Amino acid sequence: MNDPIKHVAITGGTHGNELTGVHLVRHWQSQPAEVRRSSFSTELHLTNPRAIKKVRRYIDQDLNRQFSIQDLKNPELKSYEQQQAKSLDALLGPKENPRVDFIIDMHTTTANMGMTLVFNSSDPLVIGMAFYIKQKMPHATLFYEPVDRLGHNFLTSIGRIGGFLIEVGPIAQGLLNYQVYSDTQKAVLYALDYLEKRNTGQPLDLPKEMAGYQFIEKIPLPENSEGEITAMVHPNLQDKDYHEIKPGDPLFITLAGDTIVYDGETSVYGAFINEAAYYDQHIGLSFMKSIKINLENSGSENYG
Amino acid sequence: MNDPIKHVAITGGTHGNELTGVHLVRHWQSQPAEVRRSSFSTELHLTNPRAIKKVRRYIDQDLNRQFSIQDLKNPELKSYEQQQAKSLDALLGPKENPRVDFIIDMHTTTANMGMTLVFNSSDPLVIGMAFYIKQKMPHATLFYEPVDRLGHNFLTSIGRIGGFLIEVGPIAQGLLNYQVYSDTQKAVLYALDYLEKRNTGQPLDLPKEMAGYQFIEKIPLPENSEGEITAMVHPNLQDKDYHEIKPGDPLFITLAGDTIVYDGETSVYGAFINEAAYYDQHIGLSFMKSIKINLENSGSENYG
Repeated sequence: MNDPIKHVAITGGTHGNELTGVHLVRHWQSQPAEVRRSSFSTELHLTNPRAIKKVRRYIDQDLNRQFSIQDLKNPELKSYEQQQAKSLDALLGPKENPRVDFIIDMHTTTANMGMTLVFNSSDPLVIGMAFYIKQKMPHATLFYEPVDRLGHNFLTSIGRIGGFLIEVGPIAQGLLNYQVYSDTQKAVLYALDYLEKRNTGQPLDLPKEMAGYQFIEKIPLPENSEGEITAMVHPNLQDKDYHEIKPGDPLFITLAGDTIVYDGETSVYGAFINEAAYYDQHIGLSFMKSIKINLENSGSENYG
Repeated sequence: MNDPIKHVAITGGTHGNELTGVHLVRHWQSQPAEVRRSSFSTELHLTNPRAIKKVRRYIDQDLNRQFSIQDLKNPELKSYEQQQAKSLDALLGPKENPRVDFIIDMHTTTANMGMTLVFNSSDPLVIGMAFYIKQKMPHATLFYEPVDRLGHNFLTSIGRIGGFLIEVGPIAQGLLNYQVYSDTQKAVLYALDYLEKRNTGQPLDLPKEMAGYQFIEKIPLPENSEGEITAMVHPNLQDKDYHEIKPGDPLFITLAGDTIVYDGETSVYGAFINEAAYYDQHIGLSFMKSIKINLENSGSENYG
């Protein structure tokens, strides 16, 4: 149904202080052979130029929340990132009938999430790509958050089959780290190899099922009545992304040193633990559940 | 000569995205007994309110480079941080005859520098404080960079005997981490204990000599002719602050994967390796030399 993939976009700098994607785009602009494949075109874009120049996540709003079809069609939304989202939709989309088939958007995180592949589609092409990369890079984690493509607000959602967000950490904002750079580079190149093999009918030999994590909800940092943060991530939880959090386990520690525990009834797993970019919303971490992702039963009901 | 210490200032948020000091100041404002001592007054200040609100290092310029006597006296310098420096000089100084005796300024770094005490004075009171804290917290590193107090551009230089910069990492900007928060808190409280003991004539039992590192120079990241970064810190060097760098050891790796080595003739030690805040100046690290710091031969020739 989705075949063939004809146009792929690789994007960096959607968050202007996540330098890895910015420098990988610049690297590939000077070394285009590395991302060239025979069966589709690959284009490279720096998506938030003003934020990149200022080395900030965004100028007015998070660009990677501006791509719902409702917002793209709303002429009242005129902030820098809202306008930038409309420009990118004109360049890569339009969302309802996109020119670009697939978008790979490169991000970093201050959380200890290693090499994480965030995918929002249950389309077999997308699931297969995640499996292929994890086969080649077993330390990759599959982060599954299926959503409706048209309603979704990520940049990747304006691709015909959506896309993929590569999220690598831990790394501070405004910084390069070779391990993070190199992991991101490899994962993108494997994604392109996968599409090339798929387009040209080469055998892929993917497993039927792989382990991953599905997003449940975001957990706020404790606040006082003035809305100020009163606690931080507990040291036992810091850097423990994708570890089990059992009922009664410490979540936060107050500025005065008191522990706040997880009061749920079933175990969960943490992700985006102590992500700096979420401090403005006072979010401490995401709760995830451990899942098996199935390739053969996957379908495109939820997404496109 | 310096005795007694009557007024101590503890400052946070000089860089508005270094949240540890900001939250410690707020914590102590609500729990003042923790920083109260019998023989001197302790005051708490958030020094860069607009940058703190925006969670940015600075609004116009790095505040912690605006305190040279020349700049404080220059009426032409009117940026936000330049004005803020003059306000702080009026509040804590004036630099030529300061009201406040000693300033402890709390910072964080994205580099793996652990608990580092940066001191710019060879005054025995300052050296003794560094030794006292390192006795109590043996993992602390002493970072010695003696400079002339009046010419120096750090906030701490407007204190009568200068002060101390506490620099803890690795931590991303815009983030809290309990280990970093707790280490900073302990070091500040030990500094106050030291001043209390010194003021009240209690025995200190300090060693005559301790090991530390002295700043040599800042090393730029490689650039191309357009002034863009072309390389990053080499993975062998990443997180290796205060380790020896021998001639021929890797320093950087280019975006294309080529290694650039240290071509000096004698070993040095790295600090501020891959500090995000220095990317705007394209600084990759600082070179340091290993030194013995002597308490008995210390004097105040260089500083105040």
